[in-house]
Amino acid sequence: MSVLIVGSTALDSITTPHAKNPRLLGGSASHAAVAASFFSPVRMVGVVGDDFPRNYLKLYRKHKIDLEGLQIVPGKTFHWAGEYEVNMNNRRTLATELGVFESFTPRLPEAYKDTEYVLLANIAPSLQHHVLDQMRRPKFIAADTMDLWLNIALQDLLKLLKRVDCLVLNEGEARQLTKEHNLVRAAKAIHKLGPAYVIVKKGEHGAILSSQAGMFVSPAYPLCKVIDPTGAGDAFVGGMMGYLAAAGGAVDGKLRRAMIYGSVVASFCCEGFGLQATTKATRARIDSRVKELEALTKF
Amino acid sequence: MSVLIVGSTALDSITTPHAKNPRLLGGSASHAAVAASFFSPVRMVGVVGDDFPRNYLKLYRKHKIDLEGLQIVPGKTFHWAGEYEVNMNNRRTLATELGVFESFTPRLPEAYKDTEYVLLANIAPSLQHHVLDQMRRPKFIAADTMDLWLNIALQDLLKLLKRVDCLVLNEGEARQLTKEHNLVRAAKAIHKLGPAYVIVKKGEHGAILSSQAGMFVSPAYPLCKVIDPTGAGDAFVGGMMGYLAAAGGAVDGKLRRAMIYGSVVASFCCEGFGLQATTKATRARIDSRVKELEALTKF
Repeated sequence: MSVLIVGSTALDSITTPHAKNPRLLGGSASHAAVAASFFSPVRMVGVVGDDFPRNYLKLYRKHKIDLEGLQIVPGKTFHWAGEYEVNMNNRRTLATELGVFESFTPRLPEAYKDTEYVLLANIAPSLQHHVLDQMRRPKFIAADTMDLWLNIALQDLLKLLKRVDCLVLNEGEARQLTKEHNLVRAAKAIHKLGPAYVIVKKGEHGAILSSQAGMFVSPAYPLCKVIDPTGAGDAFVGGMMGYLAAAGGAVDGKLRRAMIYGSVVASFCCEGFGLQATTKATRARIDSRVKELEALTKF
Repeated sequence: MSVLIVGSTALDSITTPHAKNPRLLGGSASHAAVAASFFSPVRMVGVVGDDFPRNYLKLYRKHKIDLEGLQIVPGKTFHWAGEYEVNMNNRRTLATELGVFESFTPRLPEAYKDTEYVLLANIAPSLQHHVLDQMRRPKFIAADTMDLWLNIALQDLLKLLKRVDCLVLNEGEARQLTKEHNLVRAAKAIHKLGPAYVIVKKGEHGAILSSQAGMFVSPAYPLCKVIDPTGAGDAFVGGMMGYLAAAGGAVDGKLRRAMIYGSVVASFCCEGFGLQATTKATRARIDSRVKELEALTKF
């Protein structure tokens, strides 16, 4: 089965205490699509400008990502610049240049409209709505979001929650959305807003899944060195959705393992700048880390 | 098998946004001893003043804690007062009155000196040394510590690390001790200081164990409501050591499960002020939460 991924496609300039990396391939759709590509065919919807490096298109193609839904339009590609502090947990934005992303309207090629697994990666909720408006009968829809949309597009987001099966967000966002500090209670409050599945990402501490079938406490793969965590959350949800699409059928009973696969792809993501380490992963290396995680959590 | 527990025995006055609770039974040894008592006989070493409430002695006895090593001396019992912020993660100390604890010298009754499992709960490293000086041939020694000792008694602590099998400390302390932000690397650095087993506590995010046999990522039991986290770390290590002592023999292959049992006792600890919820736990309720944790982490 294919997975449809809609989100941002960007150039990221990332500074850490150890290095400066201008104009890396980035954006929520890029990270999620490459992550998903290890498991299933990916259809990507996004927009880039005519300045978008050709070798980045080549990289998408190397991962067999269907680019019929990628608009290439005159103007500049969305550019984000950020800087990480020494501990790699805190980052600040240095620049956000929306470029062609400012007037982006996701248009789904006819062939995409029947895709059964849909990942609305992090973009404005109004664009996520617009994608769903074009879909026929998706089987499973997951949406990622960020604090920005809680701040400036809350009503759109609340409406979106009625239309998706799964919401993925981080701890701080779960607390902000529900005004609940306790994450177990925050997840319960989010169910009442719509999604049957709620996944709260906790970075290096893993993630928790809440659903009717109960909770799942998912570990993160312990890393000796984090080079650049940008996109790790997108890689997590991308890997998860790719795994689910490959498995096919109902997600219950598969979502836990899908999260573990997502965690492992996210761990590769953190080991290099931008997509540098993710693109060097292979299905065999991913399977091997999943086995390690099994051993690391057994008691 | 018995477990020997040495640490502080105190009266805690705890304020949260919801309640004020003066002079609760507290201290690292009290929390650890009650936690361990669900699994094995406990020998406790500590000191209290003549103001120590009789019903707290009764509570120790109800848990069959051997009090031959508890000194009751003229003067005031160690008193700590603290206040938690709304999210229950940050706390500040309002008062610390050492009382009889200031001149405490742990003296081991003859019968205690052969105990095979020893928990040096959080007290000054010099006192932890003094306990080990009196022991014959303990099989497994775990030491807990806190940032205070890293700040004012680092040399004593470093010497202690050469004498213990297992060091238990929290994330911030592991980073402070090793100057390593990454916890995997921090644990490796601590091994070089002595302990074959390093356990890093991460509160609501669980704990990690590092040893020659590899790492173990231990989950925390997810709680809907945290009433008072004071002593949860002591309950964790106490429960763990009680479980190990009950199992007997070498700890390898048992330590993971021991940590899970410790986590579960710590979860009860958080559900009431001081020891109020811990003392209401039973072995059956503990076993039931361990089963829940098995289900919560299966993938």
